[in-house]
Amino acid sequence: MSVNTERFFEEVITVKWGPEKKSVDIIDQTLLPGTVKRIQLTTKEEIWEAIKKLRVRGAPAIGVCAAYGLAVCAARIAQEEYDDFYREFQATREYLASSRPTAVNLFWALNRMEACVRLHAEEPVEIIKDLLYAEATLIRDEDVAISRGIGEIGVSLLKETRREGRPVGILTHCNAGTLATAKYGTATAPVYMALEQGWRPEEMHVYCDETRPLLQGARLTSFELHRAGVPVTVQCDNMASVLMRQGKIDIIFTGCDRVAKCGDAANKIGTATLAILAKHYNIPFYICAPSSTIDPDTPAGKDIPIEMRDPEEITSMWYEDRMVEEGIDVFNPAFDVTDASLITGIITEKGLFHAPYDFTGIHG
Amino acid sequence: MSVNTERFFEEVITVKWGPEKKSVDIIDQTLLPGTVKRIQLTTKEEIWEAIKKLRVRGAPAIGVCAAYGLAVCAARIAQEEYDDFYREFQATREYLASSRPTAVNLFWALNRMEACVRLHAEEPVEIIKDLLYAEATLIRDEDVAISRGIGEIGVSLLKETRREGRPVGILTHCNAGTLATAKYGTATAPVYMALEQGWRPEEMHVYCDETRPLLQGARLTSFELHRAGVPVTVQCDNMASVLMRQGKIDIIFTGCDRVAKCGDAANKIGTATLAILAKHYNIPFYICAPSSTIDPDTPAGKDIPIEMRDPEEITSMWYEDRMVEEGIDVFNPAFDVTDASLITGIITEKGLFHAPYDFTGIHG
Repeated sequence: MSVNTERFFEEVITVKWGPEKKSVDIIDQTLLPGTVKRIQLTTKEEIWEAIKKLRVRGAPAIGVCAAYGLAVCAARIAQEEYDDFYREFQATREYLASSRPTAVNLFWALNRMEACVRLHAEEPVEIIKDLLYAEATLIRDEDVAISRGIGEIGVSLLKETRREGRPVGILTHCNAGTLATAKYGTATAPVYMALEQGWRPEEMHVYCDETRPLLQGARLTSFELHRAGVPVTVQCDNMASVLMRQGKIDIIFTGCDRVAKCGDAANKIGTATLAILAKHYNIPFYICAPSSTIDPDTPAGKDIPIEMRDPEEITSMWYEDRMVEEGIDVFNPAFDVTDASLITGIITEKGLFHAPYDFTGIHG
Repeated sequence: MSVNTERFFEEVITVKWGPEKKSVDIIDQTLLPGTVKRIQLTTKEEIWEAIKKLRVRGAPAIGVCAAYGLAVCAARIAQEEYDDFYREFQATREYLASSRPTAVNLFWALNRMEACVRLHAEEPVEIIKDLLYAEATLIRDEDVAISRGIGEIGVSLLKETRREGRPVGILTHCNAGTLATAKYGTATAPVYMALEQGWRPEEMHVYCDETRPLLQGARLTSFELHRAGVPVTVQCDNMASVLMRQGKIDIIFTGCDRVAKCGDAANKIGTATLAILAKHYNIPFYICAPSSTIDPDTPAGKDIPIEMRDPEEITSMWYEDRMVEEGIDVFNPAFDVTDASLITGIITEKGLFHAPYDFTGIHG
C-alpha cells in the first residue's frame, strides 16, 4: 500500500499558514506524542511563547515559524507611513528575537525579513506587507528544497542498500524529521522522499534511538514516522548495538548541527557512539546536513564548543522523583563530535561528500 | 582523607541480621536514592514481598536475603520432631522460592539451606536451627570472599593505571555494587578494596552510566559510591564516548551475568557498546565475574538466550505520560553479549583471565 504523504504532512507539518494567512498554524510539540493538537498563533506574544516554550523546535522550523509570525504581525500594523510602519515592525522583530537567544536560525530568518522591508522601502506599506508574506513563504520553500535535495541522494543510497525480501533497516537518532524542519526533515528526508517516489512503507523499517535525555527520538521521530505509515521501532540508545549485531541495520542517517572544514561533525549527543558502532559492524553511516551547517571557519571538531546543559534534564526531568541523589555530579553535554574518518558520507542538498572532505565552493 | 568503610557498609549494606537474628535487615532499594530506609523482615510473607517487589535485588544479594530469611523463619518453627520441622521448613522454602521464579541464585541459596537440614537430620531440631544460621552466614561470607578476590585483582589494575597528579577515571555500567551483593559488589569491588587499602577517595573518580531503562547506575551505583565518599559523576549511556574522547576514562569495570566457554560475556544492555567504544579509544575493558558465572556448557555468546523485557519499561516507567505513542513497536533486550575479543580481561576470584580464554578447572 502506498501512502498519501500530502495528507500526512497536512496533519503533522510543523508550521503552516492559518486561515487567510491571519495566523501561524503549528503542531504543539510539547503535547506529543500523547496529544496531537494544532494551535493558531495570532499575536506576537503567542508566537514568542510558542518558540520560548519549545512548542515549535528544530532550527529550520523555528526560522519558518518566526518568519511566518513576523509576516502575520506586520500585516496588522496600522501605520501607513513607511517610517512609522518600520518602527513598529522593528519592535516586533526584536521582541520575537528575544524568544530563544541561542537560536541562530531564528535571527537569520528575522533578519532576512527585515532586509526585505528595507529593500522595498520605496514601495507602499501594503505592498511591503505582501512581500513579507512572500519572503516568509520563500524561507519555508527553500528549506523544503534543501530537504528534497538531501532526500533524493538518500533515496539513491536506500536503493543501493535494498535487498530482496526484507525491508531496509534504517537507524536514526534524535529528531531531524518533519517536526524539526519545514517539511521533509533532514535525516528522515530519504524515508519521506522514498514514499513520495512510490516505495511501500513496508519496504523500510526505521529504528529510532529514544535519545536521552530529552527523548526526541521516542517522543517525536517515532511519532511522525508511525503517522506516515512507516514501520518503526523505538529502542534505548544503549540497545542500538544489539540491532546492528543482529543485522537489522543496513544504513544510518542522522542530522547535524555543524560540520567542520575537515568533515568532523557535531550533532546530538549519542551520534558519535553510533558512528563508532557502525564502523565496528561495517554499516554505512551518513550525516544529513543542509550546506548551511558546513562551517569553513571551523577547522576541526575540537574547535566546536560543546554546550553543557542543565543536570536536571538527567536527574529529574520527566520524573516524579529524582533519579540521582542530590549533590552528585552530572555530565550532560548537548552534542558530541563524530570524527570525519567515521563518516561514510555527508549528504547535503548540493551533493554527497566523502573523505577527504573538500567543501570548497559549497557556499559560492 | 581516608574513609571509614565499615561505617559506610553499616549504613548501605544490602542484607544483615536484625537484632538477635530475629529478623533480616535490608535497605529498601525501591526508595533509593530519595529515601534511605532500612526495614526489618520478620515473617516469611515480608521476606517474600521484599524479594518480589525488588526491595532487595542483585543475584548474590537475593540469595543472601533468602538464606537469612529462611534461617529466621526456621528458628520460629515450633515443632520439635525432625519430620514435623522438615515439613514446615520445606513449605517455607518453597514459598520463598516462588517470590522470583527466574532468580537462579534464589533457588541455589534456598537449596543449600535445605541440604544443610537434610545433612544434619540426625541432630536435634534446635541444633539444626543454629546450623541454618551458620549456613546462611556462610553463604554471605562466601560472597564477600568472592568480591574480595575480584577486588584485589582490580586494585592491582588500578595501581597500574594510576598516573601522578590525577584521579584514576573508572567507568561502570548498571549496578554491580554493594547493593547487588553481600558487601563489596563485583564491578565496584576494586574501588571499595582500594579504600580499605588506604587509597584516598579523591584518588579515584567513578563515572556511572545511568543505564536505561531501569536507571540502576543513576539510582543505585552513584548513590552507594557517593555515600562511600568516592567522587562520582552520572551521565546518560550515550555520553560515555565523550568522556572517553576527553581522556577521562582510564579503565572500565562492569559486572557480568554469564560468561561463555569462549569468553563472550552477557551483561546488562549497554555493556557491549562500552566494550566497542573502549576498543576504539584504546581503554582497558574488564568484566568482573564470580567464577560461578562462567558456564562451560555455553560454547559462545550466540548460545546465550537474551531475555526481552516489557516495553513499558521504556515507554512509561518512571513517567507521568507515555514517551512513545501507543501502538509503536519497542525493542527492550535485558542483556547484550560482548565478544571475547573486546574484553581486556575477565576478573574472577580465582584469577584474571585473558584471551584466548581457557577456564578449564575453574569449577574443579
